[in-house]
Amino acid sequence: MNKNEIKLYKKDFDYSYVIGMSPTIELILTNPNIVETVVIHSKLIDTAYIYELCGDKIPVIHDDKVFRRLNITENNYVLGIFKKYETSISHDKPHILLVNPSDMGNLGSIIRTMVGFGYADLAVITPSADIYNPKTVRASMGAIFKINFQLFDNINDYINNYNKHMIYPFMLDNAEVLSYETCPINNLFTLVFGNESSGLPVEYADIGKPLKISQTSEVDSLNLSVAVGIGTYLFAVKNNLIVIKL
Amino acid sequence: MNKNEIKLYKKDFDYSYVIGMSPTIELILTNPNIVETVVIHSKLIDTAYIYELCGDKIPVIHDDKVFRRLNITENNYVLGIFKKYETSISHDKPHILLVNPSDMGNLGSIIRTMVGFGYADLAVITPSADIYNPKTVRASMGAIFKINFQLFDNINDYINNYNKHMIYPFMLDNAEVLSYETCPINNLFTLVFGNESSGLPVEYADIGKPLKISQTSEVDSLNLSVAVGIGTYLFAVKNNLIVIKL
Repeated sequence: MNKNEIKLYKKDFDYSYVIGMSPTIELILTNPNIVETVVIHSKLIDTAYIYELCGDKIPVIHDDKVFRRLNITENNYVLGIFKKYETSISHDKPHILLVNPSDMGNLGSIIRTMVGFGYADLAVITPSADIYNPKTVRASMGAIFKINFQLFDNINDYINNYNKHMIYPFMLDNAEVLSYETCPINNLFTLVFGNESSGLPVEYADIGKPLKISQTSEVDSLNLSVAVGIGTYLFAVKNNLIVIKL
Repeated sequence: MNKNEIKLYKKDFDYSYVIGMSPTIELILTNPNIVETVVIHSKLIDTAYIYELCGDKIPVIHDDKVFRRLNITENNYVLGIFKKYETSISHDKPHILLVNPSDMGNLGSIIRTMVGFGYADLAVITPSADIYNPKTVRASMGAIFKINFQLFDNINDYINNYNKHMIYPFMLDNAEVLSYETCPINNLFTLVFGNESSGLPVEYADIGKPLKISQTSEVDSLNLSVAVGIGTYLFAVKNNLIVIKL
């Protein structure tokens, strides 16, 4: 990829980029085949490790103008350009399913949480925040390169393809309270979370067993990332996706 | 307050504002004494409830220019201007203590989570993200008006004033794993969380009993809001701040 071709991200591009040393390293280590180019700023002092990682296969270019063109500030001196990709999610592992997530920060943060709690498969019902946008990638802290994700036009497309998972939609009305004691033990499950503002449509109650997280009545709802955090944590602990070492 | 005095927020102002109908209502209902003025945009159709809430004591003005001056977009037609305030935190209730939180979105989201899980007292060690900034207020969804918060220059100032709380610093090194089964039961505790990037300094291990949340080694750490969400949730459930209704 020629350095002049690298432009400020737009949704219709067939590439995106990750900003910063640590997530760029994550990208190269976990997914070298999708890396187009690594760009280095003149302020980066130690370039040896990046060159070692890139080897013969990934071109490394030095160009400060690219950083300016992409509005990159805040002491970020490394940039990894990658081809957009989509991977099928597993048939035999738990899924997280997000319905129309609208905020890139939330989406990235949820991906980071998933990986932190041992989940590797994300389904997203569109329309949704752009999963490839550098803001999403950044909020995931590079965790996006460690998961499979697949986009679906609607919930039926998902259910038709993955009909062995027990589905747990998180919703406020007519749902059973999720607690540590009663958290389902099940080797194949899907945790479903709705949009930040509107939550899940009522019909979702019919596709599985609705759950909710206890809260006071002092707030209307929990923040989406926090709700996903608690739901994924409890299921991960009870189903041994993470091991509690005491 | 004259409408021409209402300016785009800066940190040194002695007032701030909350944007949107629902958090403005929260402000008026929970903290009417600090409300200076409510501003209404000409696109707001039903103004009766706002007038009823404001009564004789809170001036209501109609002015679209104020909305433009404050760069308010996205269908927000109500604005509540409030005097900055600080309240002492309780001596006899659990605290959340944030050390140098740097992101206003995280800070607001954490306040929303606290209120959702029954906590009413927040201590913040400065320097920190501006708790009064409209972005923080917005991320809290108005929950900020339901808590006491107090700023401290350093941790010793906090400890000298609140020496009866059992302190649990959340940190990755040399900490015991927090689990549902072993989560402390204690009617007076402080959960301490560090900065988004740097976490808590090692010295914090000496001021209490360090805890950490189980995670895989695939991510360096959890997102701050998510870590606070899980810590506050487990302590809330085990100490009956929220009631799990089955």
